[in-house]
Amino acid sequence: MTPGENKDRTFADVAAGLDMPLQEAMLTQRAVRRVLPDPVDDDIVLRCIELALKAPTGSNGQNWEFVVVKDRAVKEKLGSQYARAWKLYGGLGRAYATRKRPEMEKVLRAVEWQVENFADIPVLVVCCLRGNKLPLVPLPPIAESSYYGSIYPSVQNLLLAARGMGLGASLITLPLWSTTAARSILHLPLSVNPCCIVPLGWPRGRYGSTTRKPVRDVTHLDRYGNRAWRE
Amino acid sequence: MTPGENKDRTFADVAAGLDMPLQEAMLTQRAVRRVLPDPVDDDIVLRCIELALKAPTGSNGQNWEFVVVKDRAVKEKLGSQYARAWKLYGGLGRAYATRKRPEMEKVLRAVEWQVENFADIPVLVVCCLRGNKLPLVPLPPIAESSYYGSIYPSVQNLLLAARGMGLGASLITLPLWSTTAARSILHLPLSVNPCCIVPLGWPRGRYGSTTRKPVRDVTHLDRYGNRAWRE
Repeated sequence: MTPGENKDRTFADVAAGLDMPLQEAMLTQRAVRRVLPDPVDDDIVLRCIELALKAPTGSNGQNWEFVVVKDRAVKEKLGSQYARAWKLYGGLGRAYATRKRPEMEKVLRAVEWQVENFADIPVLVVCCLRGNKLPLVPLPPIAESSYYGSIYPSVQNLLLAARGMGLGASLITLPLWSTTAARSILHLPLSVNPCCIVPLGWPRGRYGSTTRKPVRDVTHLDRYGNRAWRE
Repeated sequence: MTPGENKDRTFADVAAGLDMPLQEAMLTQRAVRRVLPDPVDDDIVLRCIELALKAPTGSNGQNWEFVVVKDRAVKEKLGSQYARAWKLYGGLGRAYATRKRPEMEKVLRAVEWQVENFADIPVLVVCCLRGNKLPLVPLPPIAESSYYGSIYPSVQNLLLAARGMGLGASLITLPLWSTTAARSILHLPLSVNPCCIVPLGWPRGRYGSTTRKPVRDVTHLDRYGNRAWRE
């Protein structure tokens, strides 16, 4: 897409994309990090979140909260956090990719673009969970898993809804590396934990298929290691 | 559905359901816990997992593993774990629901059915992550979130694919309450963490809409507490 092209599209036009066949949406979902600065209508963002709410939630707790960030000052503060975390982890990632996974170079460049242009992305959806998870107090692993199992299914619905409507989206956590900083920037009470961010905007890039290992390589029958379906 | 009714359905018939409109799948997804003991073809289960693999994975790590349990002896062992955890947590849940959330009674009865009939459910998909998360060693909250953010989007794809194909499914963690027991039952090495189970079977119940809070009640603009869209 090119800048301005999205101005003439009505909500009804865009929302019609939600009738895309389920498997087409899944098969063509990928992280679209390079997006245009053009605004995205609130109606479109709210529809994505509304569909997110249809995902499973542990014990029907519905303890999710979504902070939609459009204010440039707030985006800049989150962007500084992202840049700081990226300086450390991106450097490590690059060193690793150069040695072992050259195909990651393209992803790293897209993330770099996102870090540098973070405040120009029209909408950031910060996905949070209410609940008394105290930082650095360990829980049994399965309690942790249940906790995050109440937000990420909804995040995936949000990403698929964005895909359906042709909106670029990705799933990131690095800007939230310091929970303390994120809480302060977003005015989150201690009882609300920021889990991830989904940046949204009209794509510069395009959706398309991803490369994944064959299903028979990651599937085991009855016990781990029994790769019954591997050819 | 009634027992036996599924025998005449071919893979092509069932897989055609994956072309259901994306939003219809999301809007009619719900936990379907009561399922028939009729077998589910491996092709159908593998197709669900194949679509699960299309979800985002942190740094393209694809560090997921899926153990498909069909052996009755293994299902019985997991079922004993479920019953043990349910005795404790279900009791607590029931006491709470009776006092504060009478609408949960129906959910509790469905879970109870699942606990009692666990070994009769034709397929259990145990969703796992490889990675060096040590039990009881605390990580910064966002590292934990990133970790589970690499499995639950794929679990949601699995659930939506099941929905599309008309297969009953739900998302549970209680049978994995003791990670040590789960590891031993499933022969998981220490480097593989069981995260949740998706039981699959042809539904006795039916799919249909869920009740959720309005989107405007869980959405905030720019900072937490600024409910800009609340009417």
